[in-house]
Parts: sequence; C-alpha cells; structure tokens
Amino acid sequence: MSHNTFGHLFRFTTWGESHGPAIGCVVDGCPPGLELSEADIQPFMDARKPGTSRFVTQRKEPDEVKILSGIFEGRTTGTPISLLIENKDQRSKDYSEIKTRYRPGHADFTYDAKYGIRDYRGGGRSSARETASRVAAGAIARKIIGSNIQIRGAVIQIGTSMIDGDNWDWKQVSQNPFWCPDAATAKDWENYLDETRKSGNSIGAIVEVHAEGVPAGWGEPVYGKLDSDIANGLMSINAAKGVEIGAGFASAAYTGVENADEIRMTDGKPQFLTNNSGGILGGISNGDTIIARMAIKPTSSILTEVRSINAQGDEIDVRTKGRHDPCVGIRAVPVAEAMLACVLADHKLRHRGQTGR
Amino acid sequence: MSHNTFGHLFRFTTWGESHGPAIGCVVDGCPPGLELSEADIQPFMDARKPGTSRFVTQRKEPDEVKILSGIFEGRTTGTPISLLIENKDQRSKDYSEIKTRYRPGHADFTYDAKYGIRDYRGGGRSSARETASRVAAGAIARKIIGSNIQIRGAVIQIGTSMIDGDNWDWKQVSQNPFWCPDAATAKDWENYLDETRKSGNSIGAIVEVHAEGVPAGWGEPVYGKLDSDIANGLMSINAAKGVEIGAGFASAAYTGVENADEIRMTDGKPQFLTNNSGGILGGISNGDTIIARMAIKPTSSILTEVRSINAQGDEIDVRTKGRHDPCVGIRAVPVAEAMLACVLADHKLRHRGQTGR
Amino acid sequence: MSHNTFGHLFRFTTWGESHGPAIGCVVDGCPPGLELSEADIQPFMDARKPGTSRFVTQRKEPDEVKILSGIFEGRTTGTPISLLIENKDQRSKDYSEIKTRYRPGHADFTYDAKYGIRDYRGGGRSSARETASRVAAGAIARKIIGSNIQIRGAVIQIGTSMIDGDNWDWKQVSQNPFWCPDAATAKDWENYLDETRKSGNSIGAIVEVHAEGVPAGWGEPVYGKLDSDIANGLMSINAAKGVEIGAGFASAAYTGVENADEIRMTDGKPQFLTNNSGGILGGISNGDTIIARMAIKPTSSILTEVRSINAQGDEIDVRTKGRHDPCVGIRAVPVAEAMLACVLADHKLRHRGQTGR
Amino acid sequence: MSHNTFGHLFRFTTWGESHGPAIGCVVDGCPPGLELSEADIQPFMDARKPGTSRFVTQRKEPDEVKILSGIFEGRTTGTPISLLIENKDQRSKDYSEIKTRYRPGHADFTYDAKYGIRDYRGGGRSSARETASRVAAGAIARKIIGSNIQIRGAVIQIGTSMIDGDNWDWKQVSQNPFWCPDAATAKDWENYLDETRKSGNSIGAIVEVHAEGVPAGWGEPVYGKLDSDIANGLMSINAAKGVEIGAGFASAAYTGVENADEIRMTDGKPQFLTNNSGGILGGISNGDTIIARMAIKPTSSILTEVRSINAQGDEIDVRTKGRHDPCVGIRAVPVAEAMLACVLADHKLRHRGQTGR
Repeated sequence: MSHNTFGHLFRFTTWGESHGPAIGCVVDGCPPGLELSEADIQPFMDARKPGTSRFVTQRKEPDEVKILSGIFEGRTTGTPISLLIENKDQRSKDYSEIKTRYRPGHADFTYDAKYGIRDYRGGGRSSARETASRVAAGAIARKIIGSNIQIRGAVIQIGTSMIDGDNWDWKQVSQNPFWCPDAATAKDWENYLDETRKSGNSIGAIVEVHAEGVPAGWGEPVYGKLDSDIANGLMSINAAKGVEIGAGFASAAYTGVENADEIRMTDGKPQFLTNNSGGILGGISNGDTIIARMAIKPTSSILTEVRSINAQGDEIDVRTKGRHDPCVGIRAVPVAEAMLACVLADHKLRHRGQTGR
Repeated sequence: MSHNTFGHLFRFTTWGESHGPAIGCVVDGCPPGLELSEADIQPFMDARKPGTSRFVTQRKEPDEVKILSGIFEGRTTGTPISLLIENKDQRSKDYSEIKTRYRPGHADFTYDAKYGIRDYRGGGRSSARETASRVAAGAIARKIIGSNIQIRGAVIQIGTSMIDGDNWDWKQVSQNPFWCPDAATAKDWENYLDETRKSGNSIGAIVEVHAEGVPAGWGEPVYGKLDSDIANGLMSINAAKGVEIGAGFASAAYTGVENADEIRMTDGKPQFLTNNSGGILGGISNGDTIIARMAIKPTSSILTEVRSINAQGDEIDVRTKGRHDPCVGIRAVPVAEAMLACVLADHKLRHRGQTGR
Repeated sequence: MSHNTFGHLFRFTTWGESHGPAIGCVVDGCPPGLELSEADIQPFMDARKPGTSRFVTQRKEPDEVKILSGIFEGRTTGTPISLLIENKDQRSKDYSEIKTRYRPGHADFTYDAKYGIRDYRGGGRSSARETASRVAAGAIARKIIGSNIQIRGAVIQIGTSMIDGDNWDWKQVSQNPFWCPDAATAKDWENYLDETRKSGNSIGAIVEVHAEGVPAGWGEPVYGKLDSDIANGLMSINAAKGVEIGAGFASAAYTGVENADEIRMTDGKPQFLTNNSGGILGGISNGDTIIARMAIKPTSSILTEVRSINAQGDEIDVRTKGRHDPCVGIRAVPVAEAMLACVLADHKLRHRGQTGR
Repeated sequence: MSHNTFGHLFRFTTWGESHGPAIGCVVDGCPPGLELSEADIQPFMDARKPGTSRFVTQRKEPDEVKILSGIFEGRTTGTPISLLIENKDQRSKDYSEIKTRYRPGHADFTYDAKYGIRDYRGGGRSSARETASRVAAGAIARKIIGSNIQIRGAVIQIGTSMIDGDNWDWKQVSQNPFWCPDAATAKDWENYLDETRKSGNSIGAIVEVHAEGVPAGWGEPVYGKLDSDIANGLMSINAAKGVEIGAGFASAAYTGVENADEIRMTDGKPQFLTNNSGGILGGISNGDTIIARMAIKPTSSILTEVRSINAQGDEIDVRTKGRHDPCVGIRAVPVAEAMLACVLADHKLRHRGQTGR
C-alpha cells in the first residue's frame, strides 16, 4: 500500500502539513556505507525553496533539513533515515476565510468529500510544501545511483511560450530564475510572468527532466516498468496533469519508420541514432538518456474572482489571497528531478536484488 | 513489490508469454458475493482479440477465458480468481530469425540487457498479448465498481488525423473498426491505415478513456493519487509513451482563470462548469467524469528495413515479418478501459477501508 | 497487501480450492538463468502428496505440476512462473452434508462470518490442499538459495510422544512414514496412530525444520526480520498454532548466562558454541543453522461426534466423514520446509538488493 | 516491502536509534475524524517507559510523544501522523568499549555482517528502545478498533516460575511491577528478580495478550491470516523467540476430540465452550477472545563474563556494563499489546475494504 509512501526497495514516506510545526520524511532501504550529511541534501532544498525571486511565492522558509537517524559517523547504516524540516513562516490567518470555501482547482472540495475534515491552513496536506520532503529524499537517491548518473531538469514552456530547442544550453538553467535552458526565452518570460502576476492570474508550464548515464537493464516489466513508475512519480507532484516519455504525445503522429530509434555500434557499444523512446523500451532502460516531461497546470490560487461554492452548498465568488507562485511549474523542476532520482534508486536496487548485477 | 502485480486491495498478477501454452492472471481481493461467470468477461475479451478486421493483427486467437477458482455457485467467494487463456495460434517459426536480432523500438535489446535471456518467440513476455489478462481483470473490476459507473474509450487520433470533437458520438465507437467516435473521421482512417499497412509501415494513435459516475472522494494522496495510479496503469500498457488527465498538456498554456473549473449548484449538487481537471483534484475524484488520454507509439514491428544490431554486436538491417497490428492504438482501447476500471476498483476498496464509506 | 501472496522480491501468489478444477500459484521475482523444469519440483510434490501411507488421507492425487510460463529452453527468464496442479480425486458428495454445518475447529464458521459465502466442498479455499502450491514454490526457492543451503524437516512429537533427541538421525526421516528422525520412536508411532485413527480421533504434532549453510547477514530489521518472516510463513500453514526459533519457549526459563551462545574462532571463522538463537540474532542470520519449530493441532475433521451449530443457528452434533489425515502434522513437514525456503530466497534477494552482496 | 514498516491499510514506519537525538514513527492510513491527542498516547508510553522500578533498566526517559502532523482541531484528518520521542538520557560513553566487541546474544555481530557498519551506542537500531514507537502506534490503533475491543497483557512466567492460572485477576496486573495477574506469584518474583539482578544475570519470560470483543470475520486467508500476522508482529519484538495462539504448543499433545472447541447457542449467539483456537480459525477471528503468547529470552546484556570474539576475529571475554533490564519480558507487555492492537486495526480496515462490513 502506498498512501504516503513512494518506492519499494528504496522508499520514502512523507508526512506533514503546510502550517503544522514541521514536515518531513522517512527514507528506508538506503544501502549502508554511503557518505551522507545535511550538506549533501541542503543544496537541493535551496534550489526548491520559496522566496528566491519575485516569480515564486514570497513565503520565507529556510527549509533546513535535520537528519534524525540512520547516519553514524558520517555514513548511512542501512537503517531508516528520518528527515525533518521545520515550518517557520506560516501565516495561518491568511487562510481563515477559505475555511469553508472551495477554491476551484484546489483539493479543498475533494478532501472534504473524502475525509469529512481537512486542515485548511495553507492547503494542509495538499500543499506543494510536501514536495520539500521529496527533494530531500531525492538527494539521498542521487547518492545511491552514484555520480555517473546525472539528473537535470528544465522548464521548456511557460504558458504559450516555448523555448527554442536549438538554443538548449544546460548552463543557462542556473543563470535565470526560471530553470530555462534558452537564454533568449528566459528574457521573454520575465515580462510574461510579471504581467501574469500583476493581473492577478497564473500560468501553466512544461518541465523536462533528463537522466544521463543510466545503464541498460533497469525497470521491471510489466507492472513496475521504469516508465510507468516515472509516470506515477511525476503525476503525483502537485498540479501535474500530464507525463510523457521521449517523443511522448508526438509519437502518436509518427510512422513506425519515423519513430524507430535505429542502432549502430560506436566504440564497441550500441548507439541509438535517435531517442524517441526516451531511453526506455519495454519498461526497461536501454542505456540512452532517459527523458521525461510533465505538464503543470497554472496555480489555482489566484487573486481574480471565480465562481464556486462553500461547504454549505452556497454559491459564492472566490479570490485567493496569501502568497502563491504565479507559475508553480518553476519550482517543480527540482521536485521532478528528485522523483526521477528516487525511481532510479529504487530500480537500481530492485534490479540488483533479482539479477545480482 | 509489483513486478507483475497491479493494484493493492483489488489486485491482479499476470503471467505468460506470447507463444507459451497459455497466459492468465490471478485476481485477488475481489469482494465476495458478486455474480460472475465467464460470460461476464468474454465480451471484453472479444473486443480486444486479434483478427477482427484487416486493420489489426491477423493472428487468430479465440481468447476464451476459463475461471479456475474463486467462484462458487455463480458468485465470487472473496478468494483468488484464477483466469486462464490458452494460446492457440502461435507460429513460432515466424520469429526464429529475430532470435538474436534486436528490432528497433522493441524490448528485445533491453530484455537481453536485463535478464541475459529472453523468450524471443513473438516477443515473449514483452508481447502485447499480455494485455488480454488485463482485460479479463478489468471485467471483474467493472463488477466491483458497479453499473452506475460507466467506463468507455475511443481512439481520437491516428497519426496526424484527429477527430473533430464536435462530432463525438459514443454510439459510433462500435460502428467502425477503429473505436472512433466521429463517423466522418473513421471513414478517412480506412484509407489512411490501408496505405500505412501496404507501405510496410505503422502509425501511432491517441486513446481517450472516460469514467462517468465516479463518486467524489476516491484516491489516496499523496502517493496513491487517483491520477498517478491511472498514469501508472496506462503507461504500463505496451507502446504507451504519454498520459494526460483532463486538459493535460494543454493546461500548460492556460492561465489560472482559464483553467479554473468553476462550480455552481444544480439540483442541490455541485456542478463543475468545465472539466479541465479531468475529474480529479489533489489526487481525489471530484465527482465529474474522469478523463484520461494516452499516446501510443507506432508498432515497432514493420516490414520496412531499419538499421540495428544483433546480440553479437554486429550492425545489421532488420525488417520484421509475422502478423502485426499496423496501429496498436486501436486494440489498446479495451486495455485502457480495463486499466481504468482496475484503478477505480482498487480505490473504491481502499477508500472504503480507510473511511468506511 | 498480501491476502494470497507471500514474500516480497521472491513472491508467490496461490489460488484454488480443494474441489475446483485445479490449484496453482504464480511465482514472481525469480532470478533469470536458473535451470528449472517440472522434474525439479515434482519430488517435493511427491513428498507432500496424499495417499502414500495409511497414516495420511486416502485421497489419491498425483499432484503433477505443469509449468505454464517463465521458463525458456530449460531456464528461468526472470518473468512470472505459473504453476498448475489439477485436482483429480475430488469426491464432493462426501461434503454435501456439511454444507450448512460448522465443524468445530474448522474455518467453516469463520469463512461464512467473513464472506457470507463459502465453497464448502472439501474445505474450499481453507483446505490444506492449498499447501501443494507452497511446496511447488518452495522447490523454486531452493534453486535460488542454491545447493549450499540445505533445508530439512522432521516430526519430533506426535501427541504426547516425543522423539529422543540423542537418537536424531536425518537418514531415518525417509525410512518411515512419519518423517521421524528417531527410528525407535517411529516404531511407537505406528501403533499410536493406528489407534488414533481407529478410534475416530486425530492427534497433534510438532515439526522442526533446519536450514544449514545460510550465510550471516540475511534478514531485515525491524519489520522484515528473518525470524518474524519465518513465524509468519509457518503460522500461515493450516493447523499451525505455534512457532518458535532456536530454544524458543524454553528460553523463557533460561538465565542470560545459560542462554548466551558463546563464540570462539574455528578455522578462522566465528563458531557459536551453542545455538539457542536458532541462527538468528536481531532478526538477521548469524551463519549458524536456522532452527524453527511449529505446533500443529490435531485434525479437526474427526469421526467422533462433537457439539456444534449450523448456519441457521440450530444446535447440532457433527461428525465428519470423508478422507482425512489422522495427524496433519506429518504432511506438514515438506510444507514447512517450503515456507522456510521461500523466506530465505526472498531475504537473499532483499539483502542483495540493499547491500549488493 | 516492509523493512521498517508494519501493516498494510493501517501501517506505521519506525525510525531512530537508541542514542540518536530522537526516535519516532509515521502512522499512515488512520481513518479520519477520530479524536486524538498526545494525552491519548502518553499513558501507554508511561506503561512501557524505563526507570519505573528497580526491576527494569534505570535509564530515565520521559518518553514524551509529540504529534507533528495528521491532527487538526483535535481530530485525525486521514493524513500521516508523525510521532516524535526525544532521547534524553543517552550515556554513550558506557558503550564505547563494546564498539568492536560482539556481545553474545546481541545483534552486534549480525549487524556488522549485514551492513558492514553499525551504530554501536546502546545497540543503535537494534535496541528495544525502538519499541516505544510501536507503543505509540498501538495507542492510535486502539482508537481505530474502538473501545468495544479490550486489549490486555500480562507476564505469566518468569524463568522457571509460572503463575497459577486459577489465581488470574486482571486487576492485579497494575498492582505489581511485573504485570503479573497472580498476586502470590508476583510476590515470589520480587526475590527471584532481585537475586537474578544481583548475580549479574538475567532471566526470560512469557507474555500473554488478550483481545476481547473482536467480531468474527477479521483476517485474510491465506497469507494475511490474523494469526500469522500476530505471529509476525510479536516475533518482531526484541528478544522474542516463540509465539503461540490459543492452546499453542500444548495442542500438539491433544487429540481432535480434546482440541475441538464445541459450540452452543447462548442468547441467540454462537458460544464456544472452550478456546483452544485462541479465537482464530482458518486465519479469521471467530468472535471469541483472541489469545496469544510469546516467549522472551533473557536479556543478553549481562554483567557476567561470557566468551566471544571481536570485530577483528580475536577471542575475547565480554561483560556488558550499562543500564539493562534484568528481565526484558516485563516491559514487553505494553509492546505486545500494541502489536496486537496494530494487527487488529489493520485487519479491521482490510476486512472493511474488501467486504464493506
């Protein structure tokens, strides 16, 4: 069962609400003997944390991770690693007025329908704040898969503005507040997002993540496929509405000849001439770069009034104050990277368990 | 763990290879007391089975399901239901020449990389023949969720030809060999697919599935979300390269105002004025129709030669004889419906387990 | 979830009822490349099968296993292995009169309470016939753990008659119909069981199983301990009422000094001077022989009348006709061996997955 | 997978080492709407906590539980409940000398064999301190199963001294420091344990737990049986070496006639005239009191020297200083109660999930 747990051999369980005292996770199944300290995790937390530019929520959270267990003398012991992140900048009064009001696009309505009770402060458990725990777990996952595997992500579309793939430069990703690999497009997005924000609106985005260096052979057919587990992991991220691998939806328009990733030998190794497969065939990695994309819907918390109902069934108009990301897709990049890392760490161990390799 | 098992409370485990004596599955967790016989399952098998038109593979399989356990005097007993489907029309000699040749786009290469051994006959375990078991399990899942929930699927795009959404008519789906809800487009597809087939090529497709009547409240945040489980289930289908829920990738281009599914009251019940969410908010059903789409790549087995390698690392050219679907997307419709049904059955039981409702 | 599935990385799912057309199981997670055929499994089936002496049930079942998947050219492929065993000698009419009568000590009452329906023929799903599938899975598990690990079991007590441990001789186990390692006691048991049988009664037993050669390091604290998984596996066997490891319940009477398994070095290796631990410390194997024992209650199906009720709540007297083991403990030996093998196979893979060793 | 997780629908994951900053657990799957605060949990913590009498370890831990998530306005929300217990009275220097010395009967040797690294301070992860988290989870489990089910435990044997069953009085359990239901025997145990402690030795025990009021129908055959899950849960407790249900090992000596729990009707309800089954038939509760017993070996940490080896393979003599329970069986009672409560809570939800009852 997996209500709040992700993964199998490498697995993490997250807990915590947006405005509770803390959030965190327990990471289980980590191999013993890996060097690990808070310093290995914190940079990834910093990459996701709020308040770093005017294009993201202004909530100020240091997002400092504390390791409470599982490490001894600087190394993992193979026992559960408990990670804790305190919530510092809750402003619960901001939310009191949505206590009984359902914001369209939010989980307010569905949590009430499911549980009959919800912690409405800052979205409670449904808040994207939960993703901080994923990023922490992902940092550990990266240790497991090792430095030969490089996981990187980027925003490739915001609203109707797509990057020019020919301009792709991974170095640019850290040079702008959008994780944008195309410097020219990043410039455009500044104005685009400023306008969006000022008009009390929000906007969607597409995130792309790559894993280079994954050996051929990871993934478990037929219900633990590498791609279905990636789809599961990415779609579980707040606001995700779509996932694709390799050519993805574009492959629907391809013929078999166009879609075939032909193979030649290079330096004695198989070389795929194209990568429509996104590095996965039959649910198993083929050694090429794993490529996944996810669609992130626009933030539902907007200052513009929209029609809704309240818990009593009255028709109301709702506008959401508080501090929100005008484009949640931006901060979703390190989360998507983390989920990809976690899927790979799990599959590395599962593959090793079954085959001994 | 879930190498070959799907689901949690309602779960099925499939087994079998394309050219072995039989395939099948064990369905566990089914509630007791449901009326069930082979006759409830067979119509769904018939909808998926090969050889029904010139647009699908010409392999002739009756796909008759036998129930070996779990039913007593016409009703489920709550114990495992074992389902067996004999393979009748294997022609393994067709495949002998690909024994050591890797067909681009297939799992040949990755199975060898993973396991060091593979049953190459007809794709072995990686064959889409496995999906017959899913359809059988899905028929049982439909019994569990009940007749108030209607699950239906359609092909909405083949290659570059999309249906006109304004023409959508569910009745058309059974009137053409393409599961096409748009009569005019279905006509076009005949020629399109004939040409594709004759040119020794294949083509991709997009499948859309709906579940109407799902009550609000199903789905388990945050790692058993209804949408992430649907993504997992659909992406595990052979040849799937993308999954989206509701507006999906289109939502990346929307603003928050455009994307908000506003709510009014109708007959004392909440009514969503649009359905960009695809019936799921925060991972939980909202009572609106659940809508999912998946992209299916073109069949990799094509008569046109493509460049590849063999198991010895020699560069070769490969063309795949045998009997193949020119567009596997077509026969994927009943499989997608089945996976959606299985996810819903599992979540019905999970929700009931936790909440008692 | 594990209603009908045992194990994690190495796992099997059983299905089938005593008087259905067949029973069987699906074994998943088996490493690829192992030599395996029906001939590897059948000897274990024969050891468990009914009708081999007058001291066990006279039902005649060949218990021939058919492998339906997962093997190619004599080797495991890493995909699910489906095993089928036909039921040949059902005599369902024997059971018609217990259709609505609850036999004391049976699952009749509890299945009805749980499911509201049950296949009463021969005990249906609750029949010990299900254990044939465990034995088949266990034969595969033995392949995985390898021939360096030897798993053997014996009956050490029937009713009030215990073996003399000083007479223990493994060779005797196959020389009498009781799996008794003490020739003298085996002789006594003949009369004992003949009397029991003739008086329309039955008798309990204690079974002991050993695994020699297990390397130190298998087992996952704290909720996948090797001993708790063994306890789980053995207690799931029909009629089991107790499980102990090493000194077991006797250790309650020991002092710390008496109980300590002191350690010396022999040939450069740690040597435990005693084995009160039963080869397991902190849930992890220590390299010494793993020793487990289980108590099996007397067969509940007896010819002597006992007081009970029927499904309508009427007070009745019940005597059970049909063909039953006077001492089910005897045929439980190969089942206990199989469960121990399965636990070890699972933990070998789990240990390898996490640690790479 | 379940390295550090127990249960399925109701499940908890524990983390933490004896001498780390804290220990804790995450409880998932709790139904929403239950009243819950620290005050509901603390009494059970207090019952298990160390330092309460001279017969238990003198480590002073307040064992105060903090709830970090999952509760809103005094009620469970259905989201994960994170529980934290700070370690206050670590004295790690006590342990420095066992850093590389393997205490016989401890997990020192096996943790090193498995992981190649261990937190040796106070036993690290293998310490019985972990059981505090189980007790906390168990308090929540009691809320789920409701006050109609009463779970109680007692020590019925210490060393060679058994209680007299005829003197059983539940009220006595809280009147002596041994959880002893027999006042006369409790008196004897004072001297017995004082002698044991003063001689630098320790002693084993047997614990019995009851659950009254469990409805018929809980438990999932055949690999989620109520009794096999109880066996799993109890055997996972530190120092447990045996588990039995109902008559347990005694049933091996019974005939079928002796063992049969005959049934009559009383006030329109089935009434079992004896309870050899321990309230479980075929893995499913029968409505009678569930009775389980576990054997706890003597504490391995003793002041008496015993022969052992160190990590370098040198033969050494070991005596263990520090603060230890002379009889760990005593403090195991609330832990056993907690595990039984957790198994029942899980099965209540599982049964409800599958059957709707």
